[in-house]
Amino acid sequence: MKRFFSVEDVINVYDIIKEAINLKKNPYCFQHIGKNKTIGLVFFNPSLRTRISCQKAAFNLGSNTWVLNIHRDSWNIEMKDGNVMKDTQEHLKEAISVMNLYCDILAVRTFPHLIDRDYDYNEVLFNKILSYSKVPVVNMESATLHPLQSLADVMTIAEFIPFFSKKKCKVVLSWAPHVKPLPHSVANSFSQWISKIEEIDLTITCPEQYDLYEEFSNGVYTTYNQNEAFLNADFIYAKNWSSYINYGKILCNNNDWMITERKMKITNKAKFMHCLPVRRNMVVEDSVLDSPNSIVLQQAENRIYASQIIFLKILQSLS
Amino acid sequence: MKRFFSVEDVINVYDIIKEAINLKKNPYCFQHIGKNKTIGLVFFNPSLRTRISCQKAAFNLGSNTWVLNIHRDSWNIEMKDGNVMKDTQEHLKEAISVMNLYCDILAVRTFPHLIDRDYDYNEVLFNKILSYSKVPVVNMESATLHPLQSLADVMTIAEFIPFFSKKKCKVVLSWAPHVKPLPHSVANSFSQWISKIEEIDLTITCPEQYDLYEEFSNGVYTTYNQNEAFLNADFIYAKNWSSYINYGKILCNNNDWMITERKMKITNKAKFMHCLPVRRNMVVEDSVLDSPNSIVLQQAENRIYASQIIFLKILQSLS
Amino acid sequence: MKRFFSVEDVINVYDIIKEAINLKKNPYCFQHIGKNKTIGLVFFNPSLRTRISCQKAAFNLGSNTWVLNIHRDSWNIEMKDGNVMKDTQEHLKEAISVMNLYCDILAVRTFPHLIDRDYDYNEVLFNKILSYSKVPVVNMESATLHPLQSLADVMTIAEFIPFFSKKKCKVVLSWAPHVKPLPHSVANSFSQWISKIEEIDLTITCPEQYDLYEEFSNGVYTTYNQNEAFLNADFIYAKNWSSYINYGKILCNNNDWMITERKMKITNKAKFMHCLPVRRNMVVEDSVLDSPNSIVLQQAENRIYASQIIFLKILQSLS
Repeated sequence: MKRFFSVEDVINVYDIIKEAINLKKNPYCFQHIGKNKTIGLVFFNPSLRTRISCQKAAFNLGSNTWVLNIHRDSWNIEMKDGNVMKDTQEHLKEAISVMNLYCDILAVRTFPHLIDRDYDYNEVLFNKILSYSKVPVVNMESATLHPLQSLADVMTIAEFIPFFSKKKCKVVLSWAPHVKPLPHSVANSFSQWISKIEEIDLTITCPEQYDLYEEFSNGVYTTYNQNEAFLNADFIYAKNWSSYINYGKILCNNNDWMITERKMKITNKAKFMHCLPVRRNMVVEDSVLDSPNSIVLQQAENRIYASQIIFLKILQSLS
Repeated sequence: MKRFFSVEDVINVYDIIKEAINLKKNPYCFQHIGKNKTIGLVFFNPSLRTRISCQKAAFNLGSNTWVLNIHRDSWNIEMKDGNVMKDTQEHLKEAISVMNLYCDILAVRTFPHLIDRDYDYNEVLFNKILSYSKVPVVNMESATLHPLQSLADVMTIAEFIPFFSKKKCKVVLSWAPHVKPLPHSVANSFSQWISKIEEIDLTITCPEQYDLYEEFSNGVYTTYNQNEAFLNADFIYAKNWSSYINYGKILCNNNDWMITERKMKITNKAKFMHCLPVRRNMVVEDSVLDSPNSIVLQQAENRIYASQIIFLKILQSLS
Repeated sequence: MKRFFSVEDVINVYDIIKEAINLKKNPYCFQHIGKNKTIGLVFFNPSLRTRISCQKAAFNLGSNTWVLNIHRDSWNIEMKDGNVMKDTQEHLKEAISVMNLYCDILAVRTFPHLIDRDYDYNEVLFNKILSYSKVPVVNMESATLHPLQSLADVMTIAEFIPFFSKKKCKVVLSWAPHVKPLPHSVANSFSQWISKIEEIDLTITCPEQYDLYEEFSNGVYTTYNQNEAFLNADFIYAKNWSSYINYGKILCNNNDWMITERKMKITNKAKFMHCLPVRRNMVVEDSVLDSPNSIVLQQAENRIYASQIIFLKILQSLS
């Protein structure tokens, strides 16, 4: 693997899930591959899970990490080309090129601004980073995608439903209310990964005007009726996102969309999923999040092995 | 050892001090136990000594660490249960549960707010952390206690006075002036630890209305007369704290309480102790801090071995 | 080597350059020397290259690092002696003495304030740090010098021009415009290092009143005519600095001093050098920085081996 920007960089989704599950059973067995390797973790935005799970994944591989919080630890970065840099201290090109020199893999987080849809959906910033980088780049959440999260998510589903043995299951990605306009990356990426797994039947449910960008939800059944969606569901994945059509806007904040115990009863005793952090009693009721059917911590734990299998694949391709 | 919240989690104080002193002589001899272990260091508040000495202790054990500065690296944490999380991004329950997944020991620092005495003295926040955590938790200073500091402190005294051979010594914990209301944790914890060592005769001296909470200073002779206290002292431990009775208030800022060269002459050539950071010429005169009898750096050095023996005991109990 | 404050701490500049070049070929071969050693990296100011390249250098040696951002991770530091510390929380003396206890080498960055020339040029702050420290101190950029940068710079030149075989070359250090008053450390230090290498003929070019402090540019030909300087140059090192004579002031912001493609044509197909970060189209035109003759990334890469050879020399002298 030469980079990990999206599911498209994975040759076979089934295989990578199996390998991640195996790694979880024996996490320290590849330290000969990670030895003397350095993974640089660069954050343009805050992080808890991604920051620490990637460090843990690198430790498991016997690799070193460094962490750089752009804007706080270092300099103001110029993103545009050709400017006279009166107000910025370092151009992205130099920043990325230099960080390249000090690591074997460069993992980067850059959130969207949710203002200019074309800029975000063309992944202008991340594509620049990819073009400037000579070492493999790993997407720790870009403007439109969060593939490490999605790999952990499908791995978690695989641990519960043996879709490897062809058993079908119904997964619902449900929009839920929030006070701030949020990126689409978790939802986009989840939808994109699930579409590679035949045994999973995905339904998206959201208020009108909250449809996801069709490229990532291609062929997925979307309904504006949450109750209908929940019927017979095996997994409910809750997530807020801002509007794609009315880009970055909050068009609905209807509490009725919150995931409640009552709604979970419509389902087929569904497992509850969320990528975290989650706002309790806004996105989901306490009683759902705290119930035995909540598997949000399994998802969080699998973040380690999702990162680790990707780092491992890349390190193996280096040698 | 399954957790380290206070001295009460230590089976035998004499033994742990001896083991810490032995570890100092041979700090790298337990790397087979620390291998592939990860110690998470979580700071709700700033830190210099604790931050770095815990990292060094983990290095000595051959373990990895990650450091998370809550509020800065990650998200605003909700501390209350049942709230609709309009203003906070992640609940403490998820934050702790997730951090658990990425480490073998979770060490946490949370200062008191010094506003609500019951909240602080019931250790509401730290108890929540303990209840949410499935991995062993280490107290890197909570609302009322700082046991890693105290273990380093008694270890330092033990290096000077062989109380293992039953020699008695007099230790004075002296209040000293400060401009800001400070927590009681260092004083409480020191008093609590010393009370476990028969050979040490502790005297507390402070202005009226500055008595420590009796649970931690049970049976300790307290006097409002600093000069009387200093008479024949072998160790003077200086520390400011705010009032317990008039909770969190500064009732006295009398410079007369500063530890001076003149006062040290009353003592039995006492060693001068402080946990650092210390405000010079407010808490203590330069000439005392810079004298050969000042052992503040030995205390700081022993912070490594205090943390290391605790981490080691916990790691040993895991396997 | 017992400390690394400037080139004067290096016994033989030719030897250290050769050793750094050899280390680059085989960076992991000294891990037996770095094992169980800890390098503390202390930043009073922001950093990207220095921060990460020093971590990488330590990793290469098999050593641990901790990073402390003063003022952000820890406490406000008192720099003056004898003060009643009403507004500061910890004196530099304790901060340095304590950090000493937790590492084998202490690397420190402290920028000048560019207000009081005597304070800066007497290196008052760094000299205090040196005097307080019992472990070897490495200068990661002080008020007047940046020797790790300079070692990387001369190493880079050596990789292009075999001055070890007595071939002469012409190097030009050219002032260039900037919006903010910048330190002199990179320019001072570069000049000081180059002066130790007989085969390099250094010319400094800058506007009037921008002459560097003569101690560091002793015997170096300085001209206010940039075009004249560029004639037959083999290397152009661009750098802004504020005035030394009119201390810390910006006296000129003439765009004519920017390094352009047109000016590079005057040279002997010179390599373009800069320490980074660089403001594009202010200090240097895009087309020069992006040309094949730009060797700024080689300089940045060599920062690893400059730090690593210095850390190695110091660690070797410890045992």
